Amino acid sequence: MNEFGIIDHFFKKSSLNREDVIFGIGDDAACVQVPQGQQLLISTDTLVSGVHFLDSHSASDIAWRAVMVNISDMAAMAATPCWTTLALTTPEFDQSWFAHFSQSLQAALGQFGVALIGGDTTRGPLALTLTVFGTAPDGKAIRRSGAKVGDIIWVSGLLGAAALAVTFLNKEGLEPAERAILMDALMRPKPRTDLTPLLRQYAHAAIDISDGLTADLNHICEASGVGACLQLNAIPIHPLLKKYCSDRGFDLAVGGGDDYELCFTCSPDNTHAMLTELNAMGLTCYPVGTIEEKPGLRGIDEQGKIHEVRVCGYSHFQ
Amino acid sequence: MNEFGIIDHFFKKSSLNREDVIFGIGDDAACVQVPQGQQLLISTDTLVSGVHFLDSHSASDIAWRAVMVNISDMAAMAATPCWTTLALTTPEFDQSWFAHFSQSLQAALGQFGVALIGGDTTRGPLALTLTVFGTAPDGKAIRRSGAKVGDIIWVSGLLGAAALAVTFLNKEGLEPAERAILMDALMRPKPRTDLTPLLRQYAHAAIDISDGLTADLNHICEASGVGACLQLNAIPIHPLLKKYCSDRGFDLAVGGGDDYELCFTCSPDNTHAMLTELNAMGLTCYPVGTIEEKPGLRGIDEQGKIHEVRVCGYSHFQ
Repeated sequence: MNEFGIIDHFFKKSSLNREDVIFGIGDDAACVQVPQGQQLLISTDTLVSGVHFLDSHSASDIAWRAVMVNISDMAAMAATPCWTTLALTTPEFDQSWFAHFSQSLQAALGQFGVALIGGDTTRGPLALTLTVFGTAPDGKAIRRSGAKVGDIIWVSGLLGAAALAVTFLNKEGLEPAERAILMDALMRPKPRTDLTPLLRQYAHAAIDISDGLTADLNHICEASGVGACLQLNAIPIHPLLKKYCSDRGFDLAVGGGDDYELCFTCSPDNTHAMLTELNAMGLTCYPVGTIEEKPGLRGIDEQGKIHEVRVCGYSHFQ
Repeated sequence: MNEFGIIDHFFKKSSLNREDVIFGIGDDAACVQVPQGQQLLISTDTLVSGVHFLDSHSASDIAWRAVMVNISDMAAMAATPCWTTLALTTPEFDQSWFAHFSQSLQAALGQFGVALIGGDTTRGPLALTLTVFGTAPDGKAIRRSGAKVGDIIWVSGLLGAAALAVTFLNKEGLEPAERAILMDALMRPKPRTDLTPLLRQYAHAAIDISDGLTADLNHICEASGVGACLQLNAIPIHPLLKKYCSDRGFDLAVGGGDDYELCFTCSPDNTHAMLTELNAMGLTCYPVGTIEEKPGLRGIDEQGKIHEVRVCGYSHFQ
């Protein structure tokens, strides 16, 4: 099977039908219709074997994670994900690998109603680049740069399980159910598109937590020209970190990446209304601090003592 | 310098300003505005070191070629290229390499008024994926599938120089000027966006010649449910093939890829009008055959004898 056969067999036919896809895979380009009154959001993420995942990871896990981390970028912008392209580079043609990969890819995209509309299949070291496209009403995409002094900083869920998975998965003493929870946190992150209506209504700034809370909150602060003070005892640390890693739990929760929860800021005037809506939606978000004028990140403990917060996070070239 | 520094220093600041870019590099996604009445065309190409280019190729050449082969896909659809994202994977951070790469990238994009709006920078084996975005008036993108029986098949320029470069560049006997022409054909292909107005007016089907005339014309035939007969003596073979490679010149011209000229089909009723317009634009296109009902490709020689035409072309997995 050559690459045209691979595309036809594994990627073309199972593609979701959407009315806004004029034509998808099978031409020099795909063609889509962006609805009037909507702007187009575009995000690209590359996952490289040996860097973002291991050779030992299954094709299903790789595809699933690639989709989810890309759709998470749409969630961070409060954009509705619509379409994606896939550039897939593999060292050889392994029919079983492609079958599992494409099934998982389509299932993951299907969860969000996203259509695969094109891409490229090439030979080389295993890597994939997904580009995800979403739409948001004109001017309604939430940027990193909109945080205002006085805003409450929110986090959309428990932090640190993915980082614990990276450091702890091969250790003994974990129960199978706990191991499954950690593996799920790492390989099956859940993009928070459920928060999109709320973000569009209330958020001044948002980002998804891929590099770690401090690193990503710092991106918001730098883009917005502000600083932040975290309430150290308010950080929603995943219970497995408290159980297995109490000495480093806090560091992993604020410094470890890959959680793909959202960090966003809202005016304190809207806290009550937002909590009411969250409650009605059956969702929990956690207020973790305040945006301040003074640049940089700080933490405040239960005794009111200010601590320096080190901005860490993964870097490819450092 | 980490990847954020690399992006800021090499890619962010030099990005072209376009009014339709609401925001570009520096957030979880880029945001653009597709004009009303226009559809969005999206094309992705990956170039892998050792497969699509050699380690010995300069950063400038790699960037230039990546841009041009992607913009060529827009030319093939008669779409106006607007924006691009770049997913760049490199084994290490080599400041000089990045400087040359980004300068060449921006210069190449600038030639077509295309803005770099986002991407991803990761560590790993050298590879790059460009996704190019273009627009075409609603319903006016030219597909592969529109060829009609009786259409004249056109080629937009001389064929075979890039293929000759691949097979011949290290041979002795080439004059420096000829070597430069071949190297240019291979590494600096010229996307035929100049033909876009003409294609929108006259073409039923179009493709860019990346895999070779026979392979790409075959894509048109398969997508359109038709066949084709090539006039063998009408194929515009590059003069350097005739000079240096007379025995294999024809095969390289029809079977070799990487020329990035366009192959398109038009009703014979429009031949006169189209030739008049081409002439006024100072351009030359070559009629090379006819679309027929009978599937498959054939060739007819000066004596009227029919020859089988083998469909070849590069395949990654075969």
